[in-house]
Amino acid sequence: MADFELIKSLARKTDTKIVLLVMDGLGGIPHPKTLRTELEAARKDNLDRLARSSQTGLSIPVAHGITPGSGPGHLALFGYDPIKYLIGRGILEALGLDMDVRDGDVAARGNFCTLDDDGLIIDRRAGRIPTETNTELTTLLNGISVDNATPIVASGREHRFAMLFRPEDGGPQLSDALTDSDPQREGLAPLTVTATEPWADSTAGIINTFLEKAASAVADRHPANGLVLRGFSTTPDLPQMSDVYGLNPAAIAAYPMYRGLAELVGMNVVETGDTIEDQIRTTRDIWNNHDFFFVHYKYTDSAGEDGDYDAKVAAIERLDNALPALLDLDPDVLVVAGDHSTPSAMAAHSWHPVPVMIRSRHVTAGFAEAFTERECAKGMLGTMAATDIMPLALANAGKLDKFGA
Amino acid sequence: MADFELIKSLARKTDTKIVLLVMDGLGGIPHPKTLRTELEAARKDNLDRLARSSQTGLSIPVAHGITPGSGPGHLALFGYDPIKYLIGRGILEALGLDMDVRDGDVAARGNFCTLDDDGLIIDRRAGRIPTETNTELTTLLNGISVDNATPIVASGREHRFAMLFRPEDGGPQLSDALTDSDPQREGLAPLTVTATEPWADSTAGIINTFLEKAASAVADRHPANGLVLRGFSTTPDLPQMSDVYGLNPAAIAAYPMYRGLAELVGMNVVETGDTIEDQIRTTRDIWNNHDFFFVHYKYTDSAGEDGDYDAKVAAIERLDNALPALLDLDPDVLVVAGDHSTPSAMAAHSWHPVPVMIRSRHVTAGFAEAFTERECAKGMLGTMAATDIMPLALANAGKLDKFGA
Repeated sequence: MADFELIKSLARKTDTKIVLLVMDGLGGIPHPKTLRTELEAARKDNLDRLARSSQTGLSIPVAHGITPGSGPGHLALFGYDPIKYLIGRGILEALGLDMDVRDGDVAARGNFCTLDDDGLIIDRRAGRIPTETNTELTTLLNGISVDNATPIVASGREHRFAMLFRPEDGGPQLSDALTDSDPQREGLAPLTVTATEPWADSTAGIINTFLEKAASAVADRHPANGLVLRGFSTTPDLPQMSDVYGLNPAAIAAYPMYRGLAELVGMNVVETGDTIEDQIRTTRDIWNNHDFFFVHYKYTDSAGEDGDYDAKVAAIERLDNALPALLDLDPDVLVVAGDHSTPSAMAAHSWHPVPVMIRSRHVTAGFAEAFTERECAKGMLGTMAATDIMPLALANAGKLDKFGA
Repeated sequence: MADFELIKSLARKTDTKIVLLVMDGLGGIPHPKTLRTELEAARKDNLDRLARSSQTGLSIPVAHGITPGSGPGHLALFGYDPIKYLIGRGILEALGLDMDVRDGDVAARGNFCTLDDDGLIIDRRAGRIPTETNTELTTLLNGISVDNATPIVASGREHRFAMLFRPEDGGPQLSDALTDSDPQREGLAPLTVTATEPWADSTAGIINTFLEKAASAVADRHPANGLVLRGFSTTPDLPQMSDVYGLNPAAIAAYPMYRGLAELVGMNVVETGDTIEDQIRTTRDIWNNHDFFFVHYKYTDSAGEDGDYDAKVAAIERLDNALPALLDLDPDVLVVAGDHSTPSAMAAHSWHPVPVMIRSRHVTAGFAEAFTERECAKGMLGTMAATDIMPLALANAGKLDKFGA
């Protein structure tokens, strides 16, 4: 991995443009039913043609054998050491819902859930209630007041919400050294939040008081008659992409978490639609305003996580179908990468190396016949750290000076 | 390389089983007489078939260009940074002979040797005296007493022995900051042990007194009429595999050094026979008691060190012949790796990358046609650090949680 300080010292501004197209959960393994990966099964002429004119390789998001969450997977693609820079789940979710997160706030990811008569969780997702119901419930929660902090709740999709505990002016500071109230299993009651460091005792008390009042407020709202919180966290102090790379970056992402992540590294997060066609249109609309475009495609991961091989193949094919509109923008550097593998055969994120291709007028192509795990493995980039992708993109864009005399 | 603390934080216990089959000195280079490596020359249908259904790559034990000893080579395979964790030769040998090594003991590897009339070493291995003779000699040495320490000697095979200098209760501490008495060359006299740090002066004195008395004791025992010590060392404080990985590991190794090494990282070292068939039988006998099995095959290295190409080929073929019995155990993860290369063309350990293959139901196979250096290089693992093998094995066994949200 290149040294972050080194990259910063070499970065220079140019008017070349880089597109980083992230296909979430891109990589796969051969499925028992086809002996092919999803990339090997998909009909994707545009991606395959691109692979034949690109530099290819396989990327390791964190380290061999390590299965990354979305945070570490994306930070690595942005060139940030994912072990050094950690982002709490609560912060990611809150930013992704466009909450006004401030220094000192403690954020959490919340789920509405279904409790039985004994108070045990029988559905961690409350039957995936309609988002409208969620909005009614968060309005109830936003009416709750506790001493020494202001709870602020924002609705997500279905059963999801994010919240902030904001310290009062001149009041005690809050800490995120807290255990989850979400047991992450059904058949258990929501847990009491406890401090993992002594200085977090008062924050634990504030949050438990909130949770008691919130439980009463939703008690008669079956199937969403309970709630749990997890991933308590405060804002990390991440280097900004403008400072490190000299870039003026934009994020074109539909899903909250990826929008939040992009904001943390200093991208301009723009409004866009839910489809890849929407996202490419948005990219075109802002083409003259930026020099780096992070386009995030979620559906490969969703299908992989659902264990739906055919849906993941279809998601790849949908992206392939939309690709010409992106190619029409003629970026100086086009990177197609994944934040991690999500093999549908495993129905989960995994540690497997992720195909990557980089197209610019400075690459040596001709190794990969198609955009697949096995073909990309033949490329000159080899099996590499994902954090090396960003320096390679910058170099291909002419945005890195020579090192040393 | 994955961070050791990171791995520890992600490790979880499952009932899956991992076999790490180490073929010592596995890798080779093309021999001038055949232009093929030993792996390329060997007839080994079972290993080749396994390679075709495994993830393959090449492993670097320490770093490019670094030739590892057996200690660093194995520590890397066990996932331990071999530069950070160092083990003295004396400690390894003493543990390998089942000596009761205690904290505070200073251990050494010993050789009986042949001295000429001028006291110069003319055979560093004393003509490889029978082990029975060795036992008589160590009985003599165990009768020697010196002030402030108890010398304890254990017989090895042929000319080899190990010994401990144990501090007396309430007496001065001993130090291992000492030079060898073994000049590691013939034509020289045994050397005086000297302290490399001032606080080791008294220990050097104790050991030199012992060596004088020992020299007198064996003076008339030609060809074993001398002795030398090397590798003075105390027990290192190594993390235990149970703590770091949550494993309950067993070692099935015939040779003392590897048994000692396994014990240092917390493996249960079981009794076994000298052949790979014995070792696989032992593995089967203890199959239900453990979740990790380190099976060490020595003969590839011995033949390589002897510069005997045909013997190394034959050693590979013997292992291949025994392999089906190991496959019958159907481990969830089977890793075949080497601690370093020992090309018979060099008659020594070397720095060359070592073939590695990992079989589980989560791998993408189809890169290597055979288990050879050149074929394994085509695999998706690429050329990787040997310390990454253990995280990959754990991941393939489902023993590592996701990192980050």
